[in-house]
Amino acid sequence: MQQGIAILDSGVGGLTVAKEVMRQLPLEKIIYFGDSLRAPYGPRPADEVRKFTLQIVDYLLQFRPKMIVIACNTATAVAIEEIRNLVDIPVIGVIHPGARAAIKTTRKGVVGVIGTEGTILSGAYEKALKSISPDLEIISLSCPRFVPLVEQGLIELEDTYETVKQSLEQLQHTSIDCLILGCTHYPFLSSIISDVMGPDVSLISSADETAREISTILYHRGLLEHKIHKPIHQFLCSGDPELFKRIAEKWLNEEIKVNAVVWQVTQIG
Amino acid sequence: MQQGIAILDSGVGGLTVAKEVMRQLPLEKIIYFGDSLRAPYGPRPADEVRKFTLQIVDYLLQFRPKMIVIACNTATAVAIEEIRNLVDIPVIGVIHPGARAAIKTTRKGVVGVIGTEGTILSGAYEKALKSISPDLEIISLSCPRFVPLVEQGLIELEDTYETVKQSLEQLQHTSIDCLILGCTHYPFLSSIISDVMGPDVSLISSADETAREISTILYHRGLLEHKIHKPIHQFLCSGDPELFKRIAEKWLNEEIKVNAVVWQVTQIG
Repeated sequence: MQQGIAILDSGVGGLTVAKEVMRQLPLEKIIYFGDSLRAPYGPRPADEVRKFTLQIVDYLLQFRPKMIVIACNTATAVAIEEIRNLVDIPVIGVIHPGARAAIKTTRKGVVGVIGTEGTILSGAYEKALKSISPDLEIISLSCPRFVPLVEQGLIELEDTYETVKQSLEQLQHTSIDCLILGCTHYPFLSSIISDVMGPDVSLISSADETAREISTILYHRGLLEHKIHKPIHQFLCSGDPELFKRIAEKWLNEEIKVNAVVWQVTQIG
Repeated sequence: MQQGIAILDSGVGGLTVAKEVMRQLPLEKIIYFGDSLRAPYGPRPADEVRKFTLQIVDYLLQFRPKMIVIACNTATAVAIEEIRNLVDIPVIGVIHPGARAAIKTTRKGVVGVIGTEGTILSGAYEKALKSISPDLEIISLSCPRFVPLVEQGLIELEDTYETVKQSLEQLQHTSIDCLILGCTHYPFLSSIISDVMGPDVSLISSADETAREISTILYHRGLLEHKIHKPIHQFLCSGDPELFKRIAEKWLNEEIKVNAVVWQVTQIG
Protein backbone atom coordinates (compact mmCIF):
# COMPACT_ATOMS: atom_id res chain seq x y z
CA MET A 1 0.00 0.00 0.00
CA GLN A 2 1.17 3.52 -0.80
CA GLN A 3 1.65 5.72 2.21
CA GLY A 4 3.51 8.80 3.32
CA ILE A 5 4.40 12.01 1.55
CA ALA A 6 7.90 12.06 0.03
CA ILE A 7 9.46 15.52 0.28
CA LEU A 8 12.79 16.31 -1.35
CA ASP A 9 15.08 19.30 -1.38
CA SER A 10 18.69 20.23 -2.07
CA GLY A 11 19.18 20.31 1.72
CA VAL A 12 17.34 21.72 4.73
CA GLY A 13 15.15 24.19 2.78
CA GLY A 14 12.33 21.70 2.25
CA LEU A 15 12.02 21.43 6.03
CA THR A 16 9.99 24.64 5.82
CA VAL A 17 7.47 22.66 3.77
CA ALA A 18 7.79 19.61 6.06
CA LYS A 19 7.14 21.72 9.16
CA GLU A 20 3.99 23.18 7.64
CA VAL A 21 2.81 19.73 6.54
CA MET A 22 3.35 18.50 10.11
CA ARG A 23 1.31 21.45 11.40
CA GLN A 24 -1.46 21.54 8.77
CA LEU A 25 -1.71 17.76 8.25
CA PRO A 26 -0.74 16.23 11.59
CA LEU A 27 -1.83 12.69 10.62
CA GLU A 28 0.37 12.46 7.53
CA LYS A 29 3.70 10.63 7.56
CA ILE A 30 6.67 12.34 5.86
CA ILE A 31 9.69 10.77 4.19
CA TYR A 32 12.18 13.61 3.76
CA PHE A 33 15.31 13.63 1.63
CA GLY A 34 17.82 16.49 1.84
CA ASP A 35 20.60 16.41 -0.72
CA SER A 36 22.94 18.45 1.50
CA LEU A 37 26.03 16.90 -0.07
CA ARG A 38 25.28 18.64 -3.35
CA ALA A 39 23.57 21.80 -2.03
CA PRO A 40 23.15 24.52 -3.13
CA TYR A 41 21.32 23.65 -6.35
CA GLY A 42 20.80 27.31 -7.31
CA PRO A 43 24.11 27.93 -9.10
CA ARG A 44 24.20 24.51 -10.85
CA PRO A 45 23.35 24.08 -14.55
CA ALA A 46 19.68 23.24 -15.13
CA ASP A 47 20.47 19.85 -16.60
CA GLU A 48 22.49 18.82 -13.55
CA VAL A 49 19.68 19.83 -11.17
CA ARG A 50 17.25 17.92 -13.37
CA LYS A 51 19.43 14.79 -13.20
CA PHE A 52 19.87 15.03 -9.41
CA THR A 53 16.13 15.49 -8.91
CA LEU A 54 15.23 12.48 -11.04
CA GLN A 55 17.75 10.39 -9.11
CA ILE A 56 16.29 11.36 -5.76
CA VAL A 57 12.73 10.69 -6.94
CA ASP A 58 13.87 7.28 -8.15
CA TYR A 59 15.45 6.62 -4.74
CA LEU A 60 12.34 7.75 -2.84
CA LEU A 61 9.97 5.56 -4.84
CA GLN A 62 11.26 2.51 -2.91
CA PHE A 63 9.25 3.83 0.08
CA ARG A 64 6.05 3.68 -2.01
CA PRO A 65 4.88 7.21 -1.14
CA LYS A 66 1.37 8.37 -2.10
CA MET A 67 2.63 11.78 -3.23
CA ILE A 68 5.93 13.42 -4.20
CA VAL A 69 6.68 17.00 -3.20
CA ILE A 70 9.54 18.76 -4.97
CA ALA A 71 10.19 21.14 -2.06
CA CYS A 72 12.91 23.01 -3.94
CA ASN A 73 12.07 25.84 -6.32
CA THR A 74 15.18 25.29 -8.45
CA ALA A 75 14.33 21.62 -8.93
CA THR A 76 10.62 22.35 -9.50
CA ALA A 77 11.51 24.85 -12.23
CA VAL A 78 13.55 22.37 -14.25
CA ALA A 79 12.14 18.91 -13.48
CA ILE A 80 8.51 18.84 -12.40
CA GLU A 81 6.89 18.20 -15.78
CA GLU A 82 9.25 15.31 -16.48
CA ILE A 83 8.60 13.76 -13.07
CA ARG A 84 4.82 14.13 -13.51
CA ASN A 85 5.13 12.12 -16.71
CA LEU A 86 7.24 9.44 -15.03
CA VAL A 87 5.22 8.55 -11.92
CA ASP A 88 1.55 7.75 -11.41
CA ILE A 89 1.12 9.52 -8.06
CA PRO A 90 0.48 13.26 -7.60
CA VAL A 91 3.61 15.42 -7.88
CA ILE A 92 3.47 18.82 -6.20
CA GLY A 93 6.00 21.56 -6.82
CA VAL A 94 6.51 24.78 -4.89
CA ILE A 95 6.23 27.34 -7.67
CA HIS A 96 2.54 27.32 -8.59
CA PRO A 97 1.28 27.36 -4.96
CA GLY A 98 3.37 30.48 -4.30
CA ALA A 99 2.19 32.05 -7.55
CA ARG A 100 -1.48 31.40 -6.75
CA ALA A 101 -1.10 32.78 -3.23
CA ALA A 102 0.54 35.94 -4.61
CA ILE A 103 -2.31 36.42 -7.08
CA LYS A 104 -4.76 36.08 -4.18
CA THR A 105 -2.78 38.51 -2.01
CA THR A 106 -1.71 41.35 -4.31
CA ARG A 107 -4.03 44.33 -4.50
CA LYS A 108 -1.81 46.52 -6.69
CA GLY A 109 -0.99 43.77 -9.18
CA VAL A 110 2.75 44.21 -8.64
CA VAL A 111 4.48 41.09 -7.31
CA GLY A 112 8.10 40.62 -6.23
CA VAL A 113 9.89 37.27 -6.49
CA ILE A 114 13.19 36.32 -4.90
CA GLY A 115 14.91 33.00 -5.51
CA THR A 116 18.14 31.29 -6.46
CA GLU A 117 19.91 32.12 -9.73
CA GLY A 118 18.55 28.90 -11.19
CA THR A 119 14.94 29.68 -10.29
CA ILE A 120 15.06 33.31 -11.40
CA LEU A 121 16.89 32.47 -14.66
CA SER A 122 14.27 29.82 -15.47
CA GLY A 123 11.53 32.48 -15.43
CA ALA A 124 9.27 29.85 -13.86
CA TYR A 125 7.44 32.25 -11.52
CA GLU A 126 6.84 34.80 -14.28
CA LYS A 127 5.45 32.04 -16.47
CA ALA A 128 3.23 30.67 -13.70
CA LEU A 129 1.95 34.12 -12.71
CA LYS A 130 1.39 35.43 -16.24
CA SER A 131 -0.31 32.26 -17.46
CA ILE A 132 -3.05 32.88 -14.89
CA SER A 133 -3.06 36.67 -14.72
CA PRO A 134 -1.38 38.25 -17.79
CA ASP A 135 -1.59 41.85 -16.59
CA LEU A 136 0.51 41.36 -13.46
CA GLU A 137 3.75 43.28 -13.13
CA ILE A 138 6.56 41.10 -11.77
CA ILE A 139 9.91 42.16 -10.36
CA SER A 140 12.36 39.27 -9.90
CA LEU A 141 15.67 39.17 -8.07
CA SER A 142 18.11 36.35 -7.38
CA CYS A 143 19.63 36.20 -3.91
CA PRO A 144 22.51 33.72 -4.24
CA ARG A 145 23.89 34.46 -0.77
CA PHE A 146 20.85 33.23 1.18
CA VAL A 147 20.97 29.43 0.77
CA PRO A 148 24.58 28.99 1.95
CA LEU A 149 23.75 30.99 5.10
CA VAL A 150 20.85 28.65 5.89
CA GLU A 151 22.66 25.41 4.98
CA GLN A 152 25.51 26.40 7.29
CA GLY A 153 23.13 27.27 10.12
CA LEU A 154 24.30 30.90 10.25
CA ILE A 155 20.88 32.53 10.56
CA GLU A 156 21.47 34.33 13.80
CA LEU A 157 24.79 36.00 13.05
CA GLU A 158 24.86 39.79 13.05
CA ASP A 159 26.26 39.87 9.51
CA THR A 160 23.21 38.01 8.21
CA TYR A 161 20.94 41.04 8.60
CA GLU A 162 23.36 43.16 6.55
CA THR A 163 23.66 40.47 3.87
CA VAL A 164 19.88 40.26 3.52
CA LYS A 165 19.51 44.04 3.45
CA GLN A 166 22.14 44.45 0.73
CA SER A 167 20.69 41.62 -1.31
CA LEU A 168 17.19 43.13 -1.28
CA GLU A 169 18.25 46.69 -2.01
CA GLN A 170 16.92 46.64 -5.58
CA LEU A 171 13.42 45.81 -4.32
CA GLN A 172 13.24 48.77 -1.98
CA HIS A 173 11.30 51.70 -3.41
CA THR A 174 9.54 49.52 -5.98
CA SER A 175 5.75 49.32 -5.83
CA ILE A 176 5.47 45.60 -4.99
CA ASP A 177 2.88 44.84 -2.32
CA CYS A 178 3.79 41.18 -1.93
CA LEU A 179 7.02 39.26 -2.18
CA ILE A 180 7.22 35.57 -3.00
CA LEU A 181 9.94 33.76 -1.05
CA GLY A 182 10.68 31.67 -4.12
CA CYS A 183 13.11 29.34 -2.38
CA THR A 184 12.14 26.99 0.42
CA HIS A 185 15.26 28.00 2.35
CA TYR A 186 14.10 31.60 2.66
CA PRO A 187 11.46 31.18 5.38
CA PHE A 188 14.42 30.52 7.73
CA LEU A 189 15.24 34.19 7.08
CA SER A 190 11.67 35.49 6.94
CA SER A 191 11.73 37.65 10.06
CA ILE A 192 14.82 39.45 8.72
CA ILE A 193 13.33 39.76 5.22
CA SER A 194 10.13 41.10 6.73
CA ASP A 195 12.05 43.69 8.78
CA VAL A 196 13.97 44.81 5.70
CA MET A 197 10.92 45.05 3.41
CA GLY A 198 8.64 46.73 5.95
CA PRO A 199 4.99 46.20 6.86
CA ASP A 200 3.51 47.17 3.47
CA VAL A 201 4.94 44.13 1.71
CA SER A 202 3.25 40.79 2.48
CA LEU A 203 5.62 37.84 2.38
CA ILE A 204 4.37 34.75 0.57
CA SER A 205 6.06 31.59 1.76
CA SER A 206 6.02 29.04 -1.03
CA ALA A 207 6.50 26.50 1.77
CA ASP A 208 3.30 27.37 3.69
CA GLU A 209 1.29 27.61 0.49
CA THR A 210 2.59 24.28 -0.77
CA ALA A 211 1.52 22.54 2.45
CA ARG A 212 -1.94 24.02 1.95
CA GLU A 213 -2.08 22.71 -1.63
CA ILE A 214 -0.82 19.28 -0.55
CA SER A 215 -3.88 19.23 1.71
CA THR A 216 -6.14 20.27 -1.17
CA ILE A 217 -4.83 17.66 -3.60
CA LEU A 218 -4.84 14.81 -1.05
CA TYR A 219 -8.48 15.67 -0.28
CA HIS A 220 -9.57 15.82 -3.92
CA ARG A 221 -7.79 12.55 -4.68
CA GLY A 222 -9.29 10.84 -1.62
CA LEU A 223 -5.78 10.24 -0.23
CA LEU A 224 -5.98 11.95 3.18
CA GLU A 225 -4.82 9.83 6.13
CA HIS A 226 -7.62 9.29 8.64
CA LYS A 227 -5.90 7.04 11.19
CA ILE A 228 -5.58 9.06 14.36
CA HIS A 229 -2.05 8.43 15.56
CA LYS A 230 1.13 10.45 15.57
CA PRO A 231 3.08 9.44 12.46
CA ILE A 232 6.78 8.58 12.66
CA HIS A 233 8.59 10.65 10.07
CA GLN A 234 11.77 9.60 8.28
CA PHE A 235 14.62 11.99 7.54
CA LEU A 236 17.33 11.09 5.05
CA CYS A 237 20.31 13.23 4.19
CA SER A 238 23.17 12.87 1.74
CA GLY A 239 25.50 15.25 3.60
CA ASP A 240 26.61 15.60 7.22
CA PRO A 241 23.73 14.10 9.25
CA GLU A 242 24.78 15.87 12.44
CA LEU A 243 24.62 19.35 10.87
CA PHE A 244 21.32 18.45 9.21
CA LYS A 245 19.91 17.17 12.52
CA ARG A 246 21.01 20.29 14.41
CA ILE A 247 19.37 22.67 11.91
CA ALA A 248 16.28 20.45 11.51
CA GLU A 249 15.58 19.98 15.23
CA LYS A 250 15.87 23.70 15.86
CA TRP A 251 13.52 24.52 12.97
CA LEU A 252 11.00 21.74 13.66
CA ASN A 253 11.22 22.20 17.41
CA GLU A 254 11.31 18.44 18.01
CA GLU A 255 13.82 15.62 18.16
CA ILE A 256 14.30 13.62 15.00
CA LYS A 257 16.43 10.75 13.77
CA VAL A 258 18.44 11.39 10.61
CA ASN A 259 19.73 8.60 8.40
CA ALA A 260 22.75 9.32 6.26
CA VAL A 261 22.39 7.89 2.77
CA VAL A 262 25.70 9.06 1.38
CA TRP A 263 26.47 5.92 -0.56
CA GLN A 264 23.34 5.84 -2.67
CA VAL A 265 23.68 9.44 -3.74
CA THR A 266 27.38 9.11 -4.45
CA GLN A 267 26.64 6.03 -6.46
CA ILE A 268 23.93 7.61 -8.59
CA GLY A 269 25.30 11.19 -8.57
CA MET B 1 -16.31 21.80 -25.88
CA GLN B 2 -16.65 22.38 -22.16
CA GLN B 3 -15.98 25.92 -21.08
CA GLY B 4 -16.71 28.32 -18.26
CA ILE B 5 -17.08 27.85 -14.53
CA ALA B 6 -20.65 27.37 -13.31
CA ILE B 7 -21.19 29.01 -9.92
CA LEU B 8 -24.42 28.59 -8.02
CA ASP B 9 -25.84 30.01 -4.82
CA SER B 10 -29.13 30.59 -3.06
CA GLY B 11 -28.89 34.22 -4.18
CA VAL B 12 -26.21 36.93 -4.26
CA GLY B 13 -23.84 35.29 -1.74
CA GLY B 14 -21.93 33.34 -4.36
CA LEU B 15 -21.01 36.66 -5.97
CA THR B 16 -18.29 36.87 -3.31
CA VAL B 17 -16.79 33.75 -4.92
CA ALA B 18 -17.46 35.07 -8.43
CA LYS B 19 -15.73 38.36 -7.67
CA GLU B 20 -12.64 36.57 -6.40
CA VAL B 21 -12.62 34.25 -9.42
CA MET B 22 -12.80 37.34 -11.66
CA ARG B 23 -9.85 38.84 -9.78
CA GLN B 24 -7.70 35.73 -9.31
CA LEU B 25 -8.54 34.09 -12.67
CA PRO B 26 -9.23 36.99 -15.04
CA LEU B 27 -9.30 34.78 -18.17
CA GLU B 28 -12.03 32.43 -16.91
CA LYS B 29 -15.66 32.81 -17.97
CA ILE B 30 -18.33 32.50 -15.28
CA ILE B 31 -21.91 31.29 -15.59
CA TYR B 32 -23.61 32.36 -12.36
CA PHE B 33 -26.96 31.20 -11.04
CA GLY B 34 -28.55 32.88 -8.00
CA ASP B 35 -31.70 31.21 -6.69
CA SER B 36 -32.98 34.46 -5.13
CA LEU B 37 -36.60 33.35 -5.46
CA ARG B 38 -36.04 30.64 -2.87
CA ALA B 39 -33.36 32.34 -0.72
CA PRO B 40 -32.46 32.01 2.07
CA TYR B 41 -31.54 28.32 2.04
CA GLY B 42 -30.27 28.35 5.64
CA PRO B 43 -33.58 27.75 7.45
CA ARG B 44 -34.87 25.16 4.92
CA PRO B 45 -34.86 21.41 5.63
CA ALA B 46 -31.72 19.68 4.36
CA ASP B 47 -33.61 17.55 1.89
CA GLU B 48 -35.23 20.58 0.29
CA VAL B 49 -31.88 22.34 -0.13
CA ARG B 50 -30.48 19.13 -1.59
CA LYS B 51 -33.32 18.95 -4.11
CA PHE B 52 -32.98 22.63 -5.12
CA THR B 53 -29.23 22.25 -5.57
CA LEU B 54 -29.55 19.18 -7.77
CA GLN B 55 -32.12 21.01 -9.89
CA ILE B 56 -29.85 24.00 -10.42
CA VAL B 57 -26.89 21.79 -11.30
CA ASP B 58 -29.07 19.98 -13.81
CA TYR B 59 -30.12 23.35 -15.29
CA LEU B 60 -26.52 24.62 -15.47
CA LEU B 61 -25.22 21.52 -17.25
CA GLN B 62 -26.89 22.75 -20.48
CA PHE B 63 -24.08 25.36 -20.66
CA ARG B 64 -21.47 22.56 -20.67
CA PRO B 65 -19.27 24.10 -17.94
CA LYS B 66 -15.82 22.64 -17.20
CA MET B 67 -16.35 22.91 -13.43
CA ILE B 68 -19.22 23.35 -10.98
CA VAL B 69 -18.81 25.50 -7.89
CA ILE B 70 -21.39 25.12 -5.13
CA ALA B 71 -20.85 28.65 -3.81
CA CYS B 72 -23.29 28.16 -0.94
CA ASN B 73 -22.20 26.59 2.32
CA THR B 74 -25.68 25.26 3.12
CA ALA B 75 -25.91 23.54 -0.26
CA THR B 76 -22.33 22.26 -0.08
CA ALA B 77 -23.02 20.70 3.31
CA VAL B 78 -25.99 18.66 2.11
CA ALA B 79 -25.41 17.99 -1.60
CA ILE B 80 -21.78 18.04 -2.71
CA GLU B 81 -21.04 14.31 -2.45
CA GLU B 82 -24.15 13.44 -4.42
CA ILE B 83 -23.31 15.98 -7.15
CA ARG B 84 -19.72 14.68 -7.37
CA ASN B 85 -21.12 11.24 -8.05
CA LEU B 86 -23.51 12.56 -10.69
CA VAL B 87 -21.25 14.62 -12.96
CA ASP B 88 -17.89 13.92 -14.56
CA ILE B 89 -16.40 17.41 -14.17
CA PRO B 90 -14.73 18.74 -10.99
CA VAL B 91 -17.18 19.93 -8.32
CA ILE B 92 -15.86 22.42 -5.79
CA GLY B 93 -17.65 23.30 -2.57
CA VAL B 94 -16.95 26.15 -0.20
CA ILE B 95 -16.51 24.25 3.07
CA HIS B 96 -13.20 22.43 2.67
CA PRO B 97 -11.33 25.45 1.24
CA GLY B 98 -12.35 27.52 4.27
CA ALA B 99 -11.43 24.66 6.61
CA ARG B 100 -7.98 24.26 5.07
CA ALA B 101 -7.34 28.01 5.20
CA ALA B 102 -8.33 28.08 8.88
CA ILE B 103 -5.95 25.20 9.64
CA LYS B 104 -3.18 27.12 7.89
CA THR B 105 -4.04 30.34 9.74
CA THR B 106 -4.74 29.33 13.35
CA ARG B 107 -1.79 29.41 15.72
CA LYS B 108 -3.72 28.59 18.89
CA GLY B 109 -5.69 25.72 17.38
CA VAL B 110 -9.01 27.32 18.29
CA VAL B 111 -11.21 28.09 15.30
CA GLY B 112 -14.55 29.89 15.17
CA VAL B 113 -17.17 29.14 12.51
CA ILE B 114 -20.26 31.19 11.70
CA GLY B 115 -22.87 30.12 9.18
CA THR B 116 -26.55 29.60 8.53
CA GLU B 117 -28.59 27.28 10.73
CA GLY B 118 -28.43 24.65 8.01
CA THR B 119 -24.65 24.76 7.75
CA ILE B 120 -24.02 24.83 11.49
CA LEU B 121 -26.57 22.05 12.16
CA SER B 122 -24.93 19.86 9.53
CA GLY B 123 -21.64 19.96 11.45
CA ALA B 124 -19.89 20.06 8.06
CA TYR B 125 -17.10 22.42 9.14
CA GLU B 126 -16.38 20.46 12.31
CA LYS B 127 -16.19 17.29 10.25
CA ALA B 128 -13.93 18.86 7.63
CA LEU B 129 -11.64 20.45 10.23
CA LYS B 130 -11.41 17.42 12.54
CA SER B 131 -10.86 14.95 9.72
CA ILE B 132 -7.62 16.78 8.90
CA SER B 133 -6.59 18.02 12.33
CA PRO B 134 -8.35 16.10 15.14
CA ASP B 135 -6.98 18.19 18.02
CA LEU B 136 -8.52 21.48 16.90
CA GLU B 137 -11.03 23.18 19.15
CA ILE B 138 -14.00 24.52 17.21
CA ILE B 139 -16.63 27.01 18.33
CA SER B 140 -19.63 27.23 15.97
CA LEU B 141 -22.46 29.74 15.87
CA SER B 142 -25.36 30.19 13.50
CA CYS B 143 -26.22 33.75 12.46
CA PRO B 144 -29.66 33.48 10.84
CA ARG B 145 -30.11 37.23 10.59
CA PHE B 146 -27.19 37.89 8.22
CA VAL B 147 -28.37 36.43 4.88
CA PRO B 148 -31.70 38.35 4.74
CA LEU B 149 -29.80 41.62 5.36
CA VAL B 150 -27.53 40.92 2.40
CA GLU B 151 -30.25 39.61 0.06
CA GLN B 152 -32.27 42.74 0.71
CA GLY B 153 -29.26 45.01 0.11
CA LEU B 154 -29.41 46.47 3.63
CA ILE B 155 -25.69 46.34 4.37
CA GLU B 156 -25.16 50.00 5.06
CA LEU B 157 -28.03 50.64 7.48
CA GLU B 158 -27.11 51.75 10.99
CA ASP B 159 -29.05 48.89 12.52
CA THR B 160 -26.88 46.36 10.70
CA TYR B 161 -23.88 47.01 12.92
CA GLU B 162 -25.99 46.33 16.02
CA THR B 163 -27.46 43.17 14.51
CA VAL B 164 -24.01 41.83 13.73
CA LYS B 165 -22.69 42.74 17.15
CA GLN B 166 -25.57 41.05 18.96
CA SER B 167 -25.31 37.96 16.76
CA LEU B 168 -21.60 37.52 17.49
CA GLU B 169 -21.82 38.15 21.22
CA GLN B 170 -21.21 34.49 22.13
CA LEU B 171 -17.89 34.51 20.28
CA GLN B 172 -16.50 37.49 22.18
CA HIS B 173 -14.18 36.50 25.01
CA THR B 174 -13.55 33.05 23.54
CA SER B 175 -9.98 32.16 22.59
CA ILE B 176 -10.54 31.80 18.83
CA ASP B 177 -7.80 33.36 16.73
CA CYS B 178 -9.53 32.90 13.40
CA LEU B 179 -13.14 32.95 12.32
CA ILE B 180 -14.44 31.18 9.24
CA LEU B 181 -17.14 33.16 7.42
CA GLY B 182 -18.95 29.92 6.68
CA CYS B 183 -21.53 31.49 4.40
CA THR B 184 -20.71 33.13 1.09
CA HIS B 185 -23.05 36.03 1.94
CA TYR B 186 -20.96 37.04 4.95
CA PRO B 187 -18.05 38.75 3.12
CA PHE B 188 -20.61 41.48 2.29
CA LEU B 189 -20.54 42.16 6.04
CA SER B 190 -16.84 41.48 6.62
CA SER B 191 -15.79 44.99 7.57
CA ILE B 192 -18.48 45.07 10.25
CA ILE B 193 -17.63 41.55 11.46
CA SER B 194 -13.96 42.50 11.57
CA ASP B 195 -14.73 45.63 13.62
CA VAL B 196 -16.82 43.62 16.06
CA MET B 197 -14.30 40.78 16.49
CA GLY B 198 -11.23 43.02 16.74
CA PRO B 199 -7.73 42.76 15.26
CA ASP B 200 -6.69 39.51 17.03
CA VAL B 201 -9.19 37.39 15.11
CA SER B 202 -8.32 36.71 11.45
CA LEU B 203 -11.35 36.37 9.20
CA ILE B 204 -11.30 33.48 6.74
CA SER B 205 -13.51 34.12 3.74
CA SER B 206 -14.63 30.79 2.34
CA ALA B 207 -15.24 32.76 -0.87
CA ASP B 208 -11.63 33.96 -1.33
CA GLU B 209 -10.27 30.56 -0.40
CA THR B 210 -12.59 28.78 -2.79
CA ALA B 211 -11.42 30.96 -5.68
CA ARG B 212 -7.85 30.02 -4.80
CA GLU B 213 -8.73 26.31 -4.80
CA ILE B 214 -10.61 26.65 -8.10
CA SER B 215 -7.31 27.92 -9.49
CA THR B 216 -5.42 24.97 -7.97
CA ILE B 217 -7.81 22.32 -9.29
CA LEU B 218 -8.07 23.86 -12.79
CA TYR B 219 -4.26 23.86 -12.94
CA HIS B 220 -3.86 20.26 -11.76
CA ARG B 221 -6.53 19.08 -14.18
CA GLY B 222 -4.98 21.02 -17.08
CA LEU B 223 -8.21 23.04 -17.45
CA LEU B 224 -6.95 26.63 -17.09
CA GLU B 225 -8.04 29.04 -19.81
CA HIS B 226 -5.08 30.47 -21.72
CA LYS B 227 -6.82 32.61 -24.33
CA ILE B 228 -6.02 36.20 -23.48
CA HIS B 229 -9.30 38.05 -23.82
CA LYS B 230 -11.78 39.45 -21.36
CA PRO B 231 -14.47 36.81 -20.87
CA ILE B 232 -18.16 37.71 -21.04
CA HIS B 233 -19.82 36.38 -17.91
CA GLN B 234 -23.44 35.26 -17.67
CA PHE B 235 -25.66 36.00 -14.68
CA LEU B 236 -28.91 34.15 -14.16
CA CYS B 237 -31.33 34.75 -11.35
CA SER B 238 -34.60 33.13 -10.30
CA GLY B 239 -35.84 36.13 -8.31
CA ASP B 240 -36.13 39.86 -9.01
CA PRO B 241 -33.44 40.54 -11.63
CA GLU B 242 -33.37 44.27 -10.87
CA LEU B 243 -32.60 43.78 -7.16
CA PHE B 244 -30.01 41.13 -8.05
CA LYS B 245 -28.41 43.46 -10.62
CA ARG B 246 -28.28 46.36 -8.19
CA ILE B 247 -26.55 44.34 -5.46
CA ALA B 248 -24.29 42.54 -7.93
CA GLU B 249 -23.06 45.64 -9.75
CA LYS B 250 -22.25 47.37 -6.51
CA TRP B 251 -20.33 44.34 -5.20
CA LEU B 252 -18.54 43.52 -8.47
CA ASN B 253 -17.96 47.16 -9.29
CA GLU B 254 -18.91 46.66 -12.92
CA GLU B 255 -21.99 46.64 -15.10
CA ILE B 256 -23.56 43.26 -15.78
CA LYS B 257 -26.55 41.86 -17.61
CA VAL B 258 -28.89 39.65 -15.57
CA ASN B 259 -31.24 37.14 -17.14
CA ALA B 260 -34.31 36.14 -15.20
CA VAL B 261 -34.98 32.41 -15.38
CA VAL B 262 -38.07 32.25 -13.22
CA TRP B 263 -39.92 29.74 -15.34
CA GLN B 264 -37.31 27.00 -15.26
CA VAL B 265 -36.96 27.15 -11.53
CA THR B 266 -40.69 27.30 -10.93
CA GLN B 267 -41.10 24.34 -13.21
CA ILE B 268 -38.54 22.18 -11.46
CA GLY B 269 -38.93 23.65 -7.96
